[in-house]
Amino acid sequence: MKQLINVPETVVADALRGMAAAHPDLTVDVENRVITRADAPVAGKVALVSGGGSGHEPLHGGFVGLGMLDAACPGEVFTSPVPDQMTRAAAAVDSGAGVLFVVKNYTGDVLNFDMAAELAEDEGVQIARVLVEDDVAVTDSTFTAGRRGTGGTLFVEKIAGAAAQEGAPLDRVAAVARQVSESCRSFGVALSPCTTPAKGSPTFELPAGELELGVGIHGEPGRERRGMMTSGEIADATVEALLADRMPTAPVLALVNGMGATPLLELYGFNAEVQRALSERGVVVARTLVGNYVTSLDMAGCSLTLCQADEETLKLWDAPVRTPGLRWGI
Amino acid sequence: MKQLINVPETVVADALRGMAAAHPDLTVDVENRVITRADAPVAGKVALVSGGGSGHEPLHGGFVGLGMLDAACPGEVFTSPVPDQMTRAAAAVDSGAGVLFVVKNYTGDVLNFDMAAELAEDEGVQIARVLVEDDVAVTDSTFTAGRRGTGGTLFVEKIAGAAAQEGAPLDRVAAVARQVSESCRSFGVALSPCTTPAKGSPTFELPAGELELGVGIHGEPGRERRGMMTSGEIADATVEALLADRMPTAPVLALVNGMGATPLLELYGFNAEVQRALSERGVVVARTLVGNYVTSLDMAGCSLTLCQADEETLKLWDAPVRTPGLRWGI
Repeated sequence: MKQLINVPETVVADALRGMAAAHPDLTVDVENRVITRADAPVAGKVALVSGGGSGHEPLHGGFVGLGMLDAACPGEVFTSPVPDQMTRAAAAVDSGAGVLFVVKNYTGDVLNFDMAAELAEDEGVQIARVLVEDDVAVTDSTFTAGRRGTGGTLFVEKIAGAAAQEGAPLDRVAAVARQVSESCRSFGVALSPCTTPAKGSPTFELPAGELELGVGIHGEPGRERRGMMTSGEIADATVEALLADRMPTAPVLALVNGMGATPLLELYGFNAEVQRALSERGVVVARTLVGNYVTSLDMAGCSLTLCQADEETLKLWDAPVRTPGLRWGI
Repeated sequence: MKQLINVPETVVADALRGMAAAHPDLTVDVENRVITRADAPVAGKVALVSGGGSGHEPLHGGFVGLGMLDAACPGEVFTSPVPDQMTRAAAAVDSGAGVLFVVKNYTGDVLNFDMAAELAEDEGVQIARVLVEDDVAVTDSTFTAGRRGTGGTLFVEKIAGAAAQEGAPLDRVAAVARQVSESCRSFGVALSPCTTPAKGSPTFELPAGELELGVGIHGEPGRERRGMMTSGEIADATVEALLADRMPTAPVLALVNGMGATPLLELYGFNAEVQRALSERGVVVARTLVGNYVTSLDMAGCSLTLCQADEETLKLWDAPVRTPGLRWGI
């Protein structure tokens, strides 16, 4: 696979320089790898900090801004950021109201955010943490004990971010984040593997006529490989996997997400089948987002995340947001 | 290449059903293939109508909404829509203030929009037309006499759309559109070919170690093939091709565009090199947009569009826009 890069060693730094040039609303510390709202710390506001390996853009750096994250810490591609990035980010955005760490459930991220929380608390920053573990495909995986954190992260960051923007205190923002995290379920499908800059070749093999059901966002194995399926069959399999884990008892927010290389034309077609599959099973969809939001470099494929939403959650979802990757109402 | 589709024959209809489900602000006529603002016609406002082959999403359907297009007509993949779609769209969105057709310079689109203009005028709709022909790579191409229309379309639709939203009359909106069209220059690079649903295999061959400089958004041949280049070398070649055609005499708007399958991480890294290459040559960048906006299905690669902008153009660029693909200020 050919890549639009200089050398693998500078891919993350190059991208951060490019983000800095494109987004004057952000402050990008290229050397220390911290992206913050340019207006941080926001007086009196609880701050949200997330981060993780690069290669999932716009997650997380593209979700920094009003109504969502205050800071993001990008690691190397598919590699956890280090605790120093997280403590530096927390110090930069804490207004005194405390900081919520949003952590995807991968072993490295969990360990490093835990260490960073201790260090930040030593420095007088109040820290709460929410773990995102929404991927129903498998329990335990290549980089994970328990379930992987994937598309649900977007809902946690957006909805808890809105609560913080409205002035909720840290314990309330953390409670909202945990409730959203518990309300999210995701399932992903790969049509092709992805290629990391360091490796320069596909991270796993997927024969020409097969797809992988339940794939992780780093190409981790899913539940099974099958012969190629239609968009409708993939939607049925995906929806069944989600509803078997939990049947929603309220309307849902739906994220129909591209893994990176699947055209938007195909994602919209997949959305039509997802809506049909949900409707046939009695699930009411309140809002739908279609696009590439939690990606896996140049992997072809898709994932579906459902987030059960009460009235309050829906209000927070609809609240204004202004980030490079998600923007409305302002 | 595996595709997330049902059958090739329903790809466009499936995508339109998926768009309808995701975007309540749009009215999607799946049978007749017309996407309109749900609130159209807007009293007293000049309407903008565009369209073209599918496979370039979010262009054009994703740019329908407040401050941009009033309607879009999607054709089959890489195939012009038919005149009936365009006259139907014009009739649906005309408030009596007239309609501007935004036409990319491909033979089929030009002929069909011309025919639609005659039919619409016969029905009493006042029509103006702007041709977008911004691709400096080649003169005459597979589907084109003259220059191809590519990334500049986004600037024409956004900036003329803002003028219409502010209440400018048809002759003024058309003049703004033509001025923007003349101010835009684009150049594209392919790292891999794309695969149309109907063909199911790559539309052209590109050997493992080569890229195509000056490629079109349907995979049309460019200027030359070269051995693989770094992101910095591609930025230099691209910027040189644009500035050789026209050296800007005012600050520019820059669109650093992905062809579909290139990760956002790489596009941001490419943007860093584009900004360096422009800065070294004395070009001032007023605004930068990075992402997948004018795509070519699952092609890997990128394009750069520069739009020279005076103060008035910049004001119209910054004006509020609310579409699925581009949204700010509202």
